[in-house]
Amino acid sequence: MSQFDNVSVLKQANVYFDGKCISHTVVFGNGEKKTVGVILPSKLTFNTGAPEIMEGIAGSCKIKLAGCDEIKEYKAGESFHVPGNSSFEIEVTEPYHYVCHFA
Amino acid sequence: MSQFDNVSVLKQANVYFDGKCISHTVVFGNGEKKTVGVILPSKLTFNTGAPEIMEGIAGSCKIKLAGCDEIKEYKAGESFHVPGNSSFEIEVTEPYHYVCHFA
Repeated sequence: MSQFDNVSVLKQANVYFDGKCISHTVVFGNGEKKTVGVILPSKLTFNTGAPEIMEGIAGSCKIKLAGCDEIKEYKAGESFHVPGNSSFEIEVTEPYHYVCHFA
Repeated sequence: MSQFDNVSVLKQANVYFDGKCISHTVVFGNGEKKTVGVILPSKLTFNTGAPEIMEGIAGSCKIKLAGCDEIKEYKAGESFHVPGNSSFEIEVTEPYHYVCHFA
């Protein structure tokens, strides 16, 4: 499914890391929120509040979760889970399009 | 109105100018499309196919339309119209959040 249907979308974007990460918030009928976004080529560290599931839509990324020495690559169609109140390092060499689900 | 309701939103973004402009496409019930996007600090030249109305949501921009020597500044809440098959130069010094309406 390449799109979300019957949703609301906020007109103003979320801009992080000087624009290296830009997303728009999508709100579902039940009040649930997700974001659709892009991370531009960079190496960034994100902190999480709520647990997140990052779903790759296009491009790929390399992920290192806090407390884990392993670096894993995730491509379009693949997802990774990040615990709440944690962080992850992400390295992107081509624009990584994602949907962020808050668990 | 800070959001669009009862719409579809495409998960994959549109990335232009190496990410200096990123937008997501929103589709309305009647098939009409708009984009919600951000232009990062830069000076860019956009070419139009269909005529466009650019509506500022946050930030500001300076616009020079093709064939016009005048440079005008547009802020949040203001819009400017661009003819079809034309172009415009845009200069942005802070992230410019916009909705692009295709006329």
